[in-house]
Amino acid sequence: MFRERKTPAEIAALLPRFWVDGESASLIPVTDRGFLYGDGVFETIRVCYANLPLWAWHRRRLHESCLRLDLPVDLSALEQQLFCLVKDFDAAVVKAIVTRGDGRRGYNPSGAPGRVVVGLHPLPELPEGAMQEGVCVRCCRTRLGHCPALAGMKHMGRLEQVMARAEWQDNTHFEGLLFDVDDWLVSGTMSNVFLVKSGVLYTPDLSLSGVRGVMRQWILDNLGACEKRLGYRDLEEADEVFLTNSVVGVVPVSRCSDVCWSTGPVTRNIQERWARLIAP
Amino acid sequence: MFRERKTPAEIAALLPRFWVDGESASLIPVTDRGFLYGDGVFETIRVCYANLPLWAWHRRRLHESCLRLDLPVDLSALEQQLFCLVKDFDAAVVKAIVTRGDGRRGYNPSGAPGRVVVGLHPLPELPEGAMQEGVCVRCCRTRLGHCPALAGMKHMGRLEQVMARAEWQDNTHFEGLLFDVDDWLVSGTMSNVFLVKSGVLYTPDLSLSGVRGVMRQWILDNLGACEKRLGYRDLEEADEVFLTNSVVGVVPVSRCSDVCWSTGPVTRNIQERWARLIAP
Repeated sequence: MFRERKTPAEIAALLPRFWVDGESASLIPVTDRGFLYGDGVFETIRVCYANLPLWAWHRRRLHESCLRLDLPVDLSALEQQLFCLVKDFDAAVVKAIVTRGDGRRGYNPSGAPGRVVVGLHPLPELPEGAMQEGVCVRCCRTRLGHCPALAGMKHMGRLEQVMARAEWQDNTHFEGLLFDVDDWLVSGTMSNVFLVKSGVLYTPDLSLSGVRGVMRQWILDNLGACEKRLGYRDLEEADEVFLTNSVVGVVPVSRCSDVCWSTGPVTRNIQERWARLIAP
Repeated sequence: MFRERKTPAEIAALLPRFWVDGESASLIPVTDRGFLYGDGVFETIRVCYANLPLWAWHRRRLHESCLRLDLPVDLSALEQQLFCLVKDFDAAVVKAIVTRGDGRRGYNPSGAPGRVVVGLHPLPELPEGAMQEGVCVRCCRTRLGHCPALAGMKHMGRLEQVMARAEWQDNTHFEGLLFDVDDWLVSGTMSNVFLVKSGVLYTPDLSLSGVRGVMRQWILDNLGACEKRLGYRDLEEADEVFLTNSVVGVVPVSRCSDVCWSTGPVTRNIQERWARLIAP
């Protein structure tokens, strides 16, 4: 397929763009239950050469969340829309939000028809050297709650993440690590976290808090990893630490406070597999 | 002040109406952080004879939540707007939503200017006899999480309440009681709960879950009540049980599953004080 490559300036002039229920629009009714109650879920998806390499994983999570919340959505129509929208872009981010739409007043969700809001954005730039030397992270003071009814889902109520992300404004920290109310490691504010100890890959168990990220699941499906409770001590003793996010991929962590790690062979291997996945 | 009393038909023709940042509007940008992340709080306020009798309590909670979340809001301007909007209404409900408005992409809330969305709605009708004989409630299966960072606030992420309210669609149950992950009683889906045992008033401690309702606070400030951990057993052994909500007031509970209560003197006393508060 022939596609004209867009320059960054052309992309900046075109994006962001938004669609509401398939129509070009950037407004929604104030009666949308996603707005009123956080009654919805979303996916933030990397566009690579007119393709969505992790779509199968995004689709699976969206399907599971919509089942769990009884949210009405036509996933085939959404899939068709997304692939059509991204067909002219080598690099971008598409965000798909599925809300319950407009319903009666109050929490009762019955009868609401659903609404799909899609946004197409430029791909954010990573700090220089992030992929090679790794990034510096900090520990957030905000503690994530234990909410088994919501755990794992990328639902629209992300106020804990907002509070945690508000804790720093300097550019030296790429991400903040989040711990739960019992001081177990959960994730970053916008990423999942993995660590390597004696050649074994570990990632926090997310049955009580956090989002089951799509990149995290891709690693679990392709390489396997031990999901368990991990604390700050496990971080200190780890040989390698890295972050995952479906937009930025696999980012090594070089430092957290006075603990340092170098980018090791397990991280490099996963980075290489990710690079092959997103290649043209 | 002379005010023409509106008939229910006139009210139904006029309401609901919405305002965004003071202008009549019913749409908001899809980039609003309240929509994207539940990054905001709201108040649902009863209008009584062109007045907002519980405004001081709503204002205090809004002020505290906005401080806690560092949400920008001009409370004096909001107060002026609300009292101006309700000046022609004997009975209505006004909902004020304070969001962080449009900001940069991602969880970082820095620099977002805030947005205020106001809705004016007809006063909902209570089931016949609710105030005298009381209402029937059920126990929800959905368990509320422990989120100390968010507990108490009426923030925009109310998905647990939506999930709980989705558990029943019959009209025989007015409300569902919510318990937390450790089986402690928290509240109803849209109300707080009080119980009376041997003349003492109790209400659940809300430091880990739930919303600190304005009616609940009005009772704590005016009559006092013991805030403590309460379980299903405490409900079973209670002499009186009632629900509070700033729109519907004080509603006696007559039954939950096979446990029954009659409306007792403590409930009646609080109902009478509430009736005086909302009288013309």
